Amino acid sequence: MQLLHRHPHTEIIFATARSAAGQPLAEHYPTLIDLPLIADEEADPATVDVAFLCLPHGAAAATACRALEAGARVIDLSADFRLHNPEDYLRWYNQEHPYRDLLREAVYGLPELHREQIRTARLVANPGCYPTSVILALVPLVRAGLLDNDTVIVDSKSGISGAGRGVALKTHFGERHENFSAYSIGRDHRHIAEMEQETGLRIIFSPHMLPVFRGILSTMYVQVTPGTLPAAMYAAFEMYANEPFVHVLPEGRLPELRHAVHTNHCVIGLQAVAIERGEYILISVEDNLIKGASGQALQNMNLMFGLDETTGLL
Amino acid sequence: MQLLHRHPHTEIIFATARSAAGQPLAEHYPTLIDLPLIADEEADPATVDVAFLCLPHGAAAATACRALEAGARVIDLSADFRLHNPEDYLRWYNQEHPYRDLLREAVYGLPELHREQIRTARLVANPGCYPTSVILALVPLVRAGLLDNDTVIVDSKSGISGAGRGVALKTHFGERHENFSAYSIGRDHRHIAEMEQETGLRIIFSPHMLPVFRGILSTMYVQVTPGTLPAAMYAAFEMYANEPFVHVLPEGRLPELRHAVHTNHCVIGLQAVAIERGEYILISVEDNLIKGASGQALQNMNLMFGLDETTGLL
Amino acid sequence: MQLLHRHPHTEIIFATARSAAGQPLAEHYPTLIDLPLIADEEADPATVDVAFLCLPHGAAAATACRALEAGARVIDLSADFRLHNPEDYLRWYNQEHPYRDLLREAVYGLPELHREQIRTARLVANPGCYPTSVILALVPLVRAGLLDNDTVIVDSKSGISGAGRGVALKTHFGERHENFSAYSIGRDHRHIAEMEQETGLRIIFSPHMLPVFRGILSTMYVQVTPGTLPAAMYAAFEMYANEPFVHVLPEGRLPELRHAVHTNHCVIGLQAVAIERGEYILISVEDNLIKGASGQALQNMNLMFGLDETTGLL
Amino acid sequence: MQLLHRHPHTEIIFATARSAAGQPLAEHYPTLIDLPLIADEEADPATVDVAFLCLPHGAAAATACRALEAGARVIDLSADFRLHNPEDYLRWYNQEHPYRDLLREAVYGLPELHREQIRTARLVANPGCYPTSVILALVPLVRAGLLDNDTVIVDSKSGISGAGRGVALKTHFGERHENFSAYSIGRDHRHIAEMEQETGLRIIFSPHMLPVFRGILSTMYVQVTPGTLPAAMYAAFEMYANEPFVHVLPEGRLPELRHAVHTNHCVIGLQAVAIERGEYILISVEDNLIKGASGQALQNMNLMFGLDETTGLL
Repeated sequence: MQLLHRHPHTEIIFATARSAAGQPLAEHYPTLIDLPLIADEEADPATVDVAFLCLPHGAAAATACRALEAGARVIDLSADFRLHNPEDYLRWYNQEHPYRDLLREAVYGLPELHREQIRTARLVANPGCYPTSVILALVPLVRAGLLDNDTVIVDSKSGISGAGRGVALKTHFGERHENFSAYSIGRDHRHIAEMEQETGLRIIFSPHMLPVFRGILSTMYVQVTPGTLPAAMYAAFEMYANEPFVHVLPEGRLPELRHAVHTNHCVIGLQAVAIERGEYILISVEDNLIKGASGQALQNMNLMFGLDETTGLL
Repeated sequence: MQLLHRHPHTEIIFATARSAAGQPLAEHYPTLIDLPLIADEEADPATVDVAFLCLPHGAAAATACRALEAGARVIDLSADFRLHNPEDYLRWYNQEHPYRDLLREAVYGLPELHREQIRTARLVANPGCYPTSVILALVPLVRAGLLDNDTVIVDSKSGISGAGRGVALKTHFGERHENFSAYSIGRDHRHIAEMEQETGLRIIFSPHMLPVFRGILSTMYVQVTPGTLPAAMYAAFEMYANEPFVHVLPEGRLPELRHAVHTNHCVIGLQAVAIERGEYILISVEDNLIKGASGQALQNMNLMFGLDETTGLL
Repeated sequence: MQLLHRHPHTEIIFATARSAAGQPLAEHYPTLIDLPLIADEEADPATVDVAFLCLPHGAAAATACRALEAGARVIDLSADFRLHNPEDYLRWYNQEHPYRDLLREAVYGLPELHREQIRTARLVANPGCYPTSVILALVPLVRAGLLDNDTVIVDSKSGISGAGRGVALKTHFGERHENFSAYSIGRDHRHIAEMEQETGLRIIFSPHMLPVFRGILSTMYVQVTPGTLPAAMYAAFEMYANEPFVHVLPEGRLPELRHAVHTNHCVIGLQAVAIERGEYILISVEDNLIKGASGQALQNMNLMFGLDETTGLL
Repeated sequence: MQLLHRHPHTEIIFATARSAAGQPLAEHYPTLIDLPLIADEEADPATVDVAFLCLPHGAAAATACRALEAGARVIDLSADFRLHNPEDYLRWYNQEHPYRDLLREAVYGLPELHREQIRTARLVANPGCYPTSVILALVPLVRAGLLDNDTVIVDSKSGISGAGRGVALKTHFGERHENFSAYSIGRDHRHIAEMEQETGLRIIFSPHMLPVFRGILSTMYVQVTPGTLPAAMYAAFEMYANEPFVHVLPEGRLPELRHAVHTNHCVIGLQAVAIERGEYILISVEDNLIKGASGQALQNMNLMFGLDETTGLL
């Protein structure tokens, strides 16, 4: 809402909510103090050009369908349209996909990889927070054919906002402050499905929860062809040379969370471990709430409506 | 539990719980990993020498009564027995006090003020967290007759553990981290009743919630007889000269939260604002979970059972 | 730099630095990753329309003089031109003011109070962080003639960024994290001079350092005419009804730090303590780095150059 | 100092310091408020039974030698005596080891692995913080012969206290709060030498700095014989069954930082990734200041002087 509110070419027509219906948004998000908008319980998608869906997976698909039928274009922040293969959806989300046709039509909304398809898409599946940071770091090596092993270990650390705003003991201040923990490690987390779809790799994924509100830092251990020099690695990342939101740091520098928080940037660094063995480490950072969610959604909207891709995001 | 567990002269016979009944304590408090105790739903108070009650006010009184009848002595950490006057209880807690007899018998468990009564008490009302830090700072000035105005402004800041372990939006990490707020300011917070009972003053009280887990720092604005020199102020605090847990810092030094967290100490400092006007500021710090709660309870237990007052607390 | 960088009508011509001269700004401020600017040791003020000075007090005055002579307008974020009376400067800053003429000319840059003068000023003294939050809250009561006592107690809590970026033990993570402390309390802090100049009141001021990076919350204890109703208090704040950056919350609601951080807003709330005694508490929050410093500087720049006052700040 | 101060069988004879010489310890460590000890610049090691050395590597060796000659036993918290092979010392610390004889005599002070040698040692090399958490997790698998690959990836996350108390921009609150970063990743960090010496493995090590003060969580990716069942893994950890300070969590549970902070415990958990491929993840937590430093030093002291190993540590 904050990004849309200050975007020069958007007008917010409505916002819907369940438990907060009828209340001013500013009561829940104090920095929206200058946005006098009341949350509705229901709204007519025919009144808007584009609808952003922030519903749980499973619930988003039907709403997306309804909005599309009403003539709105849709940017869905849930996982409902991210996996092209309905079998993958069944396996990772434990339910049949209810809209296989829409699944075929949906575009995976990572602009750096699928920009042209996004421009004309009616339905964009906004990527997950972890996958954005991981896919952007790994795809250049895949495309350059440098990887020597199809399994990659991804050790990610995310701020607590990734767990959502629901009240639960696990997000209680007393449980998280001064704490740090791993969860769903190995082959358990659903975001693995997106990472594997977009990279073609096998991912071992260990998410951890940092005692900060926002930001993701992913540490990735890759095995490339023994003897691959750093120059060849950096050359693979040249594909991002003109990207406004993906930055690769020069040799010897690694990104920190603060490179990316409160921005739409994804910043990537790399470090050789043992060149003769082909061992490298990649580090990628982003703000899980911006490049990993709403900022990327706005970037997609800009593309879909022919605006400058960076509008409202710099 | 941690303090009791490492106290050399106590044996924990049982712990009771509602929602966690049947579960090992260590599952909820990981640092109790070496205490193999399962929470019970019910327990027989006749099997213990002393029962510590950590129930909501209103619920504690009946349990205290039952434990006393079974022959146990009781240290109650709720507010049920802190106010001597049942009218005060009615006014601040909106209900008639159900055990007026016990109210008369109960001792307010601030050892530095009521040590002798505590030694022989059957029922000790453990003080509230804010009142401990405030009363210890103000009573010396009251006893020395230095105050020139019976209204004192107390601006207190507490860690979030003061809000308890219940899940609620207000204790969600995302709402508290990097945040700071006031609540129940003015004449609203129930702890005012204890402060006024023990000091005889009128208190304007503004509690705030710090983005830390533990600790209270109270800033108090007092009006003393114009011309009162710092030496006279410090002389009033001489009453704590031999106290193991109350420390007054020398002129020019003010306590910080870290003087007190993870200890049973209350540390007090003072600063003249304008001597000719009699304006002074007092600052007092404590750990709200230790000197403001369980540590003080243990200090009371030590007194009640003839142990060295500092056992298990240094 | 971030605010200027994304302001639609500014071009950053140079940035100067001492120890960081010759280095890209992005190395020190990672989120400036898309601003390819190198810090200069020296620069020619004749090449710019306006110079922002972020120098220590004492050092700023001479640079301001030089920039003005070169034809630039100046927004000075130091304390050098905030106090109109050179005697006040001598008393609070322990040195004779070196540019008394400029002192007479300088405008105190609080737009809500001095908007018209700022528009035409050559030299604007950007207010201190604490004074902004305090003056905006107190002036309405002064103007409405509601105050019954000229001494006001101000208990302020600031994020650590207020202490600057210099390395020192007091800003070491280990000293501040999970800590909270008061400093320079009473009549000691230099910001009192600005507060008293702009309000005409006598201020007892207790700053505290919060374990957060940014934000100030000030709790103010005022004595108004006994019997003054809340409606009369709120009426005094009507002077901000059309202000884009000052917001007064409705009765029953108090601002929290998160109302203001990362914004240029100052948000004010009030609470009656005892109407019959005329006791009220005001709470005011702002981001010390934005409304309390650089955001306000930009707001002043917008006014000085005839731009919409909110440009680049919403 | 805090642990020694409350240990029932120790008397602190002196503490030495450079910049803080002549000052009370409590001025630097406020919770030592009840320890009236002044730091000395020099002290006579002949007056003590055991000396704890907390000097930089390089500086510790000579002092250790002097203390041993004076008849004291020595527990050295630096890296000077941790590596048995002087060639390793030269390679990792870039200097010839000045006391090769003492190097031969020194015992690596990890009680769970070298308890008997520690009992009689004159000179104990207290392990590094990261190595303690890593070695305790990996050695059981090494001893059980389960590992199928001699390279292990260790992704560690440490609190900021690991960077010491020196003032530097990197430990400034503003640089660390809400931040997270990797440093010295790959084959760069000196603690690799200890890990490899004690495990016989090749370690890829990525340390990261958490925005908390204390605690280390290490995530380790091991390759064991394909098909190895969790039961075989847990069986290897039976070697810790009677250890007071090493705990292995049951299947399905992973340790969090808060299992270990403020305790001398190391808590280990494990998770199968793909049993048929032999992929497992281990997670190990400790308090870097206690089990990773001073608590382990005290544990060693207890062993060296025939005391119960847990004295002063529970």
